[in-house]
This record gives sequence, structure tokens and C-alpha cells, in this order.
Amino acid sequence: MPRYALKIEYHGGPFAGWQRQAEQTSVQGAVEAALAKLEHDVPSIAAAGRTDAGVHATGQVAHVDLARDWDPFRLSEALNHHLRPAPVSILTAARVPKDFHARFSAVERRYLFRLVERRAPVTHDAGLVWQVRGPLDARAMRAGAAHLVGLHDFTTFRAALCQAKSPVKTLDEIRIETHDIPHGREHRFFLRARSFLHNQVRSIVGTLERVGAGSWHPDEVKAALDARDRAHCGPVCPPQGLYLVGVGYPEDPFN
Amino acid sequence: MPRYALKIEYHGGPFAGWQRQAEQTSVQGAVEAALAKLEHDVPSIAAAGRTDAGVHATGQVAHVDLARDWDPFRLSEALNHHLRPAPVSILTAARVPKDFHARFSAVERRYLFRLVERRAPVTHDAGLVWQVRGPLDARAMRAGAAHLVGLHDFTTFRAALCQAKSPVKTLDEIRIETHDIPHGREHRFFLRARSFLHNQVRSIVGTLERVGAGSWHPDEVKAALDARDRAHCGPVCPPQGLYLVGVGYPEDPFN
Repeated sequence: MPRYALKIEYHGGPFAGWQRQAEQTSVQGAVEAALAKLEHDVPSIAAAGRTDAGVHATGQVAHVDLARDWDPFRLSEALNHHLRPAPVSILTAARVPKDFHARFSAVERRYLFRLVERRAPVTHDAGLVWQVRGPLDARAMRAGAAHLVGLHDFTTFRAALCQAKSPVKTLDEIRIETHDIPHGREHRFFLRARSFLHNQVRSIVGTLERVGAGSWHPDEVKAALDARDRAHCGPVCPPQGLYLVGVGYPEDPFN
Repeated sequence: MPRYALKIEYHGGPFAGWQRQAEQTSVQGAVEAALAKLEHDVPSIAAAGRTDAGVHATGQVAHVDLARDWDPFRLSEALNHHLRPAPVSILTAARVPKDFHARFSAVERRYLFRLVERRAPVTHDAGLVWQVRGPLDARAMRAGAAHLVGLHDFTTFRAALCQAKSPVKTLDEIRIETHDIPHGREHRFFLRARSFLHNQVRSIVGTLERVGAGSWHPDEVKAALDARDRAHCGPVCPPQGLYLVGVGYPEDPFN
């Protein structure tokens, strides 16, 4: 059975997350239902990041084994046809070697978190950003974030139900870009690591927002990290600002 | 009665347009309903641009006469409270002189049209852009657009039901910015004029898309303009890519 990698974009709003669950709408379930229109008995698909309910993706990667020899472009077109009207879109597809695994072959995950600071409620961006009424100090958030880059025990920034074997991870980058929007500002957090703990990005951004708001001193982020205690984390921020934007592999399967 | 100017952002999707209509949901109706929560017998409000069904705004301007002396900031906060959960947001409010009229004092309207060229269906931008599968030649669209700038009889690019006295208008600018998006491109059309005819922007962008797709030569835009005949217009494009982004006055009421 030839194996295919799919690059997938989705709006997390209507879904209970990536992973298929009984009696709940999932992105995995939507893609598998579309695959079932193409072939019988398609095996379950695996994805690089099992995003939570409400979390978006612009560069999720999954792989699937199919019985037929599909032209990758026609495969993506056929899947997009059957995915309608769900807000899930196959950006591109590629034939990959049998040993490619969307999750286990991945060596990097990239996330974006969109935090909007504005008094007036967002309209077009509703469900696509986390809005706070602000104001936020971007320089303080950057100073707080700097404490988190590198190899650390991230127990503080990990959900209680996280199933990872170890809380020790290397966070390769947190970059915060701030730009003006009409009557407010948007802060875009770019995070990059080999892998993330459950709720790690939302725990980090929720904490850094407290720094931006002036409730926390930037150095308290380091103290929280050093505490290695979930109780020292700031509030976990809501999912609708979070995007899985890309997954890195030793060799780009789509090139 | 003191007069206030309101700068308004809205998602046009759920509305039958700006203008209040019997038994249809309108942006004007939503704002007037919120005003009615603040005072009794608030007179009808007037807006700079009466946007069509599905058209968005990030900088609509309306004025209203109120009985009480409102602090403008508190007025905008109170209106936003009562507007929820409608996707309509008062970005800012200002006290203005009695002779300020949102529509008749305006000397410039600025529109943005977002045209996305991509095979895979958009997800996060659904309802916020017009998507075509492309490809589009941006240089050809710019060459076609150049024929439309300046003082012209825009009969070709005007809806049959347009109520403007004259089809002669000066289009001050059409700027087209193209940028890459994942697996596609977005073309942003910025149009600026003292005033526009009904459906003028959508008639222009729909025609320029035909140029970008290669169906029309850029010079055929000039021929269509010169024909002064609605039948020579390209297809009118859908409303969901259109945004009223700003209104100009001799003196900025919000400064």
C-alpha cells in the first residue's frame, strides 16, 4: 500500500480536536470520512500534532496508507471535494516512503498564538484570536519569554493530564511580533520545538499575558519555571488563538 | 441634542446590509437596537456607506443625536455591551458639531477587496475573502486597473439599480498588493474615491479578475469603460471579499 503525507489546514472551532472520539466531531474523523469516499477499509490516519478542541492548523501533517496508486494532486482535490463544507482543507499531498511517519518522523513543531489587545470586541477575527482588553507591555512579555528558551523541566507549563514520559523539553524559540491593528494591537507568539507538552503553548502564553498586563514581573516567569510545579503556572489561555503552523522533518515530504 | 460620530467595524455575513429593512437583520438595525437600550426615542442613524448584504466594514462611520451628554468612551463601551453577540463593534466614538453628517460631510471612501487565489478551499478566511482557483496574473490586473483611475463615466461598472444622479466619478486610486499565502496568493485591491456608484467596486474587481485569469486583455477594460454600457462589464464579484475600511472628512472627527 503506497503511503501519502497530507498537509492540512483547519478551523478548530467546530471540532472537539484533531483526535477521533466517539460521538464528537473531530478533524481526524472528517479526513477519514473523506478518505472512506475514495477507498474501502482505509486504515486510521496519524498526525504530527494532536491539537485540542478549538485549536487551528495551517500546517498539520498526517499520513495515510491507500490501496490505489493516487496522483498526489488528484488525491488532494478529491479529498477537498469530499471534505466540503467542513472547514478542513488539504493544502497539498505527497507520496512518501513506507518508513515516513507523520508523528514519529517529525523533528520540529511550529506554533503561532494570536493575542489581540483591544477594547472593542473583534468581529472578523472572532474565534481566530484570543482578545484581551489590555494594555499589554510587549517588551515585558519578551523579557519573560526569554527565560523559557532552551532546555528546561517544563512541569509548571504542562497540563496535569499530559502523557509525555518526561517534562524536560528544549524550547528552541519564542518570538513575539507586535503590530498595530485599528484601535489596538496584535501580538503574535511564534514557538518552535522538537515537541511540546500538553497545553504547553497555552500555559506559556497565558503566563506571558499576565506579564504583559503587569500582574507578573518578567523574572517571575523564571521563578515559576524553576518551581517545577503546575500550581505556579499562570492561567492557561483559551484555544482559539492557537495555530499549528508547521511540522519539520529531516527531509520535507512535500518538496 | 448632542451629536456623536461612531466608527464601526462589522462582519457582513449575517446581515442583509447596512440599511434597516423590514423583517431582515441589518447592521443599522443592530446599532439602533443597542442605542435604544441607552435612551428612548433615539432618531434613525445615518452612515457614510450603505454597504450591501455580506459586505464588511472596518471603518464605517455613522452619526447619531442623543438626548444625554455622553462621555464618548463610555458611549462606545455601552454600545458594545448591548451589541453582543452580534459581530458589530464600535471602535471609537466622538462628539461632533451639529453640522457633521456621516454621509454628506464625507469627502472620501476607502474600500479593500480581498481576492485569494488557491486550489485548496480557504478555512479561516471563509466568508472573509473571494476565493478563485487561479492562477491570476497580477501584472495584467494592474495594467487593466490603470485604465480606470481618474475622472470617467462609470456606467459600465454601475449596478442597474444604482440611484446616483450621475455615473461620472473620479476614482482616485486602485492599488493592488499581492502577497504569498500558504499554497496560494492573496491580491488586495485598495480603491479610493470621493464616492462610489452602487456595485462599482465589485464590478471593477470582477472585471479585473477576468483580466488576471487571462480571459480579458488589460486593454479590454478600457474598451468596456468607453462603451458606457452595463452589458460590457465583467461578472460582478461576490460581496464577502469587500470591506469599507475608511471614510475621510475635511476634519477627522475622531482626532
